Amino acid sequence: MLVEVIPSAGSPWIPPLADKIAVVIDVFRATSTMVTALANGCQAIIPVLTTEEAIQRRVDEPGLLLGGERKALRIEGFDLGNSPFDYTPEKVGGKKVIMTTTNGTRAIRAVAESRQVWIASFLNVESIVHAIFRYLEKNQDIKGIVVICAGSEDRFDIPDTLCAGMLLDKLGKRIITNDLGRAAHMLYNIAKDNLLEMLKQTEHGRLLLSLGFEKDVVYCSSANILPIVPILENSEIIWKTG
Amino acid sequence: MLVEVIPSAGSPWIPPLADKIAVVIDVFRATSTMVTALANGCQAIIPVLTTEEAIQRRVDEPGLLLGGERKALRIEGFDLGNSPFDYTPEKVGGKKVIMTTTNGTRAIRAVAESRQVWIASFLNVESIVHAIFRYLEKNQDIKGIVVICAGSEDRFDIPDTLCAGMLLDKLGKRIITNDLGRAAHMLYNIAKDNLLEMLKQTEHGRLLLSLGFEKDVVYCSSANILPIVPILENSEIIWKTG
Repeated sequence: MLVEVIPSAGSPWIPPLADKIAVVIDVFRATSTMVTALANGCQAIIPVLTTEEAIQRRVDEPGLLLGGERKALRIEGFDLGNSPFDYTPEKVGGKKVIMTTTNGTRAIRAVAESRQVWIASFLNVESIVHAIFRYLEKNQDIKGIVVICAGSEDRFDIPDTLCAGMLLDKLGKRIITNDLGRAAHMLYNIAKDNLLEMLKQTEHGRLLLSLGFEKDVVYCSSANILPIVPILENSEIIWKTG
Repeated sequence: MLVEVIPSAGSPWIPPLADKIAVVIDVFRATSTMVTALANGCQAIIPVLTTEEAIQRRVDEPGLLLGGERKALRIEGFDLGNSPFDYTPEKVGGKKVIMTTTNGTRAIRAVAESRQVWIASFLNVESIVHAIFRYLEKNQDIKGIVVICAGSEDRFDIPDTLCAGMLLDKLGKRIITNDLGRAAHMLYNIAKDNLLEMLKQTEHGRLLLSLGFEKDVVYCSSANILPIVPILENSEIIWKTG
């Protein structure tokens, strides 16, 4: 199975998506937050590109919550930011959240045309890999897996790349991958025993630490603590249990 | 000193270039070939973006040679391809070559506005680093170094990233770098004792091997065999000896 890794949401290169499945990774913090929200009973996350789109959507459906960030901070007037700790059961249980984040939402849109889109983070990598194996067993015509790292502001970033490397590691030896996939896997093998320290030293990690989000950095670096398998369905991110 | 590494010629992110110096890397094969041509007495290389631009330039100046590739092969009607072995002293000695390559030329253009542009490859990394140190000593106002990996068709590629990693390694401990620079340095440390084998397994390496260019792959993977320091001056790549 071919696994093609893309370095950032703004990548000028996106491989053909026909008959492929996709995984979206935005460790700091969009996909970590989405996974957490669903674990806490959130009914669905509706990813949109712009603040305006988010606000208009809520005008149309007043019951929805507004979440998201610009430059890592909550957007003025929004109910929730981009911290997983904002998405408590009390706040998001049984509700839908319209969410706009700088990189994560764009990464989801970039691969939305693939046959199936999963939302991954360190929190749920293993569950995603198991879901992919089950899907591939039932869908023998799938030609490849596209892994898109959201990156930071159109740039390669180490946190998403390491998470892609962990995904490749768990997918096992029967895959072939592109140069970025090979690099991601090698980097993961260097970092895996010291993931949190490595992530703290990245550009995005340092930014979050400087803004007081150390708890977020620690949490988003925790591997396989949530058995959540979010997928994109009808433009909403949901988790179908069972 | 800040060193910002860019993953590919088509990167949507280019850092500000004011008061910075730049290094362009296209291991397979544009910058390796340019370095070799200059070592073999080529007077200057004129990088242009398109085949049409190259042909028009030769109409204007009939003494110039035409070199370059599309999809790794020599362009029809051109005097030289993109193999360093095309650029022998007999062919390029005392002459100027107009050169267009898929990624290398675009990478040069992307950073042309910086204060000084160097052309690097494994063949001449150490000489480039010494030249950078000399330049920084004389130009204390320089604010940073931008390293652009040409990449392959707008994609991250391991050969250029490893060469950037070697450059960072030789620049020493007093630099700070972005996530891609840190990743490049880590990957270089894994690969450095087995560079040729690693490069043969990359996407671009395998493409060149499949086209019969094994000699090129071996040659372009040879570190620090040419003491050539090409710079961009008046839109031409030249080597000022002494």
